[in-house]
Amino acid sequence: MTLIECVPNFSEGRRPEVVDEIVAAIAAVDGVSLLDRQSDPAHNRSVVTFAGLHAAVAEGAFRGVAAAVRLIDLTEHEGAHPRMGAADVVPFVPLKSGDMSVCVDVAHAVGARIAGELGVPVYFYEEAARREERRDLAAVREGQFEGLREAIARDPARAPDEGAPAVHPTAGATAVGARAPLIAYNIDLESRDLALAQAIARAIRERDGGLPRVKALGLALDDCVQVSMNLTDYRVTSMEDVYAAVRARAREAGVEIRRSEVVGLVPQEALVRLARSALRANGFTAAQVLEARILDTLL
Amino acid sequence: MTLIECVPNFSEGRRPEVVDEIVAAIAAVDGVSLLDRQSDPAHNRSVVTFAGLHAAVAEGAFRGVAAAVRLIDLTEHEGAHPRMGAADVVPFVPLKSGDMSVCVDVAHAVGARIAGELGVPVYFYEEAARREERRDLAAVREGQFEGLREAIARDPARAPDEGAPAVHPTAGATAVGARAPLIAYNIDLESRDLALAQAIARAIRERDGGLPRVKALGLALDDCVQVSMNLTDYRVTSMEDVYAAVRARAREAGVEIRRSEVVGLVPQEALVRLARSALRANGFTAAQVLEARILDTLL
Repeated sequence: MTLIECVPNFSEGRRPEVVDEIVAAIAAVDGVSLLDRQSDPAHNRSVVTFAGLHAAVAEGAFRGVAAAVRLIDLTEHEGAHPRMGAADVVPFVPLKSGDMSVCVDVAHAVGARIAGELGVPVYFYEEAARREERRDLAAVREGQFEGLREAIARDPARAPDEGAPAVHPTAGATAVGARAPLIAYNIDLESRDLALAQAIARAIRERDGGLPRVKALGLALDDCVQVSMNLTDYRVTSMEDVYAAVRARAREAGVEIRRSEVVGLVPQEALVRLARSALRANGFTAAQVLEARILDTLL
Repeated sequence: MTLIECVPNFSEGRRPEVVDEIVAAIAAVDGVSLLDRQSDPAHNRSVVTFAGLHAAVAEGAFRGVAAAVRLIDLTEHEGAHPRMGAADVVPFVPLKSGDMSVCVDVAHAVGARIAGELGVPVYFYEEAARREERRDLAAVREGQFEGLREAIARDPARAPDEGAPAVHPTAGATAVGARAPLIAYNIDLESRDLALAQAIARAIRERDGGLPRVKALGLALDDCVQVSMNLTDYRVTSMEDVYAAVRARAREAGVEIRRSEVVGLVPQEALVRLARSALRANGFTAAQVLEARILDTLL
């Protein structure tokens, strides 16, 4: 059994009683650890984070999707965030970097159940994609709920990976995927020069030829500027990698790093890798972390 | 309830069936996670590492001591390591730096039970010491099992903290304490100059006026030299602190660090502090580590 995480996004961020019921359906599964929930009324969307051994997480994800399909009617939904389903995206995330294949298998199994038992067509994305062009979630969701029905009818290439080629009348379609943990990481500079932060962001982000798996923006805060990043795969580009890259480019302009900030949760392995790198301790492993050993004995 | 660790040392390292029985007595307590056991025949001594919520760890420690008192006869014991009891030392160790006072309370409670229910006198040491001069375990154990009976009779200052001022006839006396987690940490240099490793060890260790809570030796390995360290309180001097100190002194001699090595287990907080330091991420906390959150939900 493998410890994994699931971070489903549901298209409801304004009715707390609905989100409560979805979260309760997930948390009712024995072995599921509920870690976080966030609702955004402007997006009209909620993000739930839970973890556990993969069989429990798979069951929790399915029950959460089933509750969302029952409770959310997308024909009455509006919000700022793109969406195509009542349960819009269901990514499974390995906590250890070697466990991606388990998450891909779980995604495929849960996707088959969503289509077969709930009648909601499923698209597999990122590492779980069965077609290369579906790795990108934005391409899968193109047209959103309102446009997808027509797109499927018009273009066989838009047919779902599982289920009938027609969206569910009220619950749309669901994207089920597997991806590395995302780390939201910001670095503040000892400077108020927004152009500098923006230039560094451009230099380091993948889109403009920088570091792979890095998204970055330059922002102005109250008293300094910030390079705000998403690291979509810390195994490829880590916090220490972007820290060193930002520091080198800031220093070229005579500017130092003031501080950095990890937003939200990180897997322990990101810290283990940091120790290996910062201390040249190549042999260090997660199995040497006391709490990890305790967690292993409890699971 | 607080997650703590206990690392008792028992005066038996040659009869595996005896160690098995002691370990089984500890592990039988609900909520105890057995993390490690090591027996050293030359020392004729075994070290058991277990953890859990503090009530479970207290009960496990008491049952382990009770089994050792029943199974080990110090009048027939010989070994290279100094010892005064069948259960020789019983340190309780906080996993989070704010929890030392819990460990001191557990040490005092378990010590009172060992004296009251097992008739084994108890000395409190390190953070659990009730007399300043007993912080040092070596001072407490002075004379060992064979000399302690006479020392107590001769000198009232050697009377135990709990129990009658006379050693148990076969189980001696037990030192019960609270201390920070010990980190065993080695740094290899790109050099075969043993004198350099020894000079660096002297320069950084507390005994010779170096960094507080650091013990260090210079050693020759097959193909390089090593500064071998025990960090007795990483909250005072961390792995990154000694790494920087060793690197600076090695560079004065034109030598670089080849690699470093963490021996055995470290608490997660040591990695969290490393992240704060290496990434200038002062606001980062253990609560942001995914596995820590999962562990919290399971305890």
